[in-house]
Amino acid sequence: MNSVEVCFSPLLFEEFAKPNSIVVVVDIFRATSAIVTAFQYGAKSFIPVSTIEEARELATQGFLAGGERDGEVVAGFEFGNSPFSYMNEKIKGREIALTTTNGTRAINIAEKAEATVLIGSFLNLQALADYILTQGKDVVIFCAGWKNRFNMEDSLFAGALTNLLLTSGKFYSDCDSANASSLVYRTGRKNLMSFLKSCSHRKRLAHLNLEKDVAYCLQRDVTDVIPVLKDGRLVRLLP
Amino acid sequence: MNSVEVCFSPLLFEEFAKPNSIVVVVDIFRATSAIVTAFQYGAKSFIPVSTIEEARELATQGFLAGGERDGEVVAGFEFGNSPFSYMNEKIKGREIALTTTNGTRAINIAEKAEATVLIGSFLNLQALADYILTQGKDVVIFCAGWKNRFNMEDSLFAGALTNLLLTSGKFYSDCDSANASSLVYRTGRKNLMSFLKSCSHRKRLAHLNLEKDVAYCLQRDVTDVIPVLKDGRLVRLLP
Repeated sequence: MNSVEVCFSPLLFEEFAKPNSIVVVVDIFRATSAIVTAFQYGAKSFIPVSTIEEARELATQGFLAGGERDGEVVAGFEFGNSPFSYMNEKIKGREIALTTTNGTRAINIAEKAEATVLIGSFLNLQALADYILTQGKDVVIFCAGWKNRFNMEDSLFAGALTNLLLTSGKFYSDCDSANASSLVYRTGRKNLMSFLKSCSHRKRLAHLNLEKDVAYCLQRDVTDVIPVLKDGRLVRLLP
Repeated sequence: MNSVEVCFSPLLFEEFAKPNSIVVVVDIFRATSAIVTAFQYGAKSFIPVSTIEEARELATQGFLAGGERDGEVVAGFEFGNSPFSYMNEKIKGREIALTTTNGTRAINIAEKAEATVLIGSFLNLQALADYILTQGKDVVIFCAGWKNRFNMEDSLFAGALTNLLLTSGKFYSDCDSANASSLVYRTGRKNLMSFLKSCSHRKRLAHLNLEKDVAYCLQRDVTDVIPVLKDGRLVRLLP
């Protein structure tokens, strides 16, 4: 039996990091949903960077540059973190330098754990669960959250993945965060969008002003793509 | 309208700290439940200290010494963090130096926020809510958690208090942690004990091996006592 645990904030990750585990980084609105979409549409790799300056520097070396701060595309950048911006011929075979408010920072923190770092979203949920079930490793679901705080949508995803792993019989949970996430998901799963509207930070969701993006990011099993971090770059693990 | 927010871990508190707010520190199993009980039974004050050495030093100055690590009374200490140990004539009018794994550390962290720091538990829940509703201040419910992690019982309390504040119409929540806590509480409130047994960290609860303490700490509105932090000491604010 392997364990599944859920980390609610980048500030807590150190308590969860363990070598030889699988860490699933998730930032549903919208970094990890966008990354999964980009690979689905043919991107070759991502370099997740923490600062806008690093992304600009890589752009001068031939990378496409993606940047988002507080839900907005960074001025002068072609891509932000909307999945729709990556449904684009331009990204085929390209390497992309990406910096976002929460997601890329979480990926860079996860990298220090000497673990296998995968990228999760509702879009590749089942593929991710199927892959994890073949690996025989402990799993930490690392919610990027919102500016170091717990957020509802990442916890919903964490609960959905936790449930898939627990129902396989190959995983157990001694983690209250995983159990609370599972409860949140079971409460909201019939209609994720209306659940989030009823109980998530109203101003933040409204500020995103992205009904279309939010609806897209809540779709399940749109692709089998699983991005994995290798030597500081996200590449396509499967298929 | 005032805001209610919930902080799930001492490592996150810095994101929530704001001057002129009320911070309610909670460590249901069992530090804050024990502190409330001690005041109910006549204790004069508590000094929350972070180390066993500090508590030993204060014991030489005439304080009673309370200490708990990993659920056990510290060797040589008369009191731990069982509420029952404070239902005792010995504590009447006495000052107590207390150090626990999670609770006293959270109190010491909260102290830095220049806020009014109150001690919460199910035992004084309604009295606490009634007092807060007269104050017109923003509220942060600070869950001590378990070794920096989210735990279910503190979140249950946070949800119960959040609900009381929101239903007054004087408070709003734009905090996903508060909303998730509220959901957890609404799911578990009919039988907190069986809810916790079904979804909390099994080994930790079993390790506590304290069915009697756990049942006591889940009782609601046993007392109107509200402890408050003044100049590094917890004293009785009300009644």
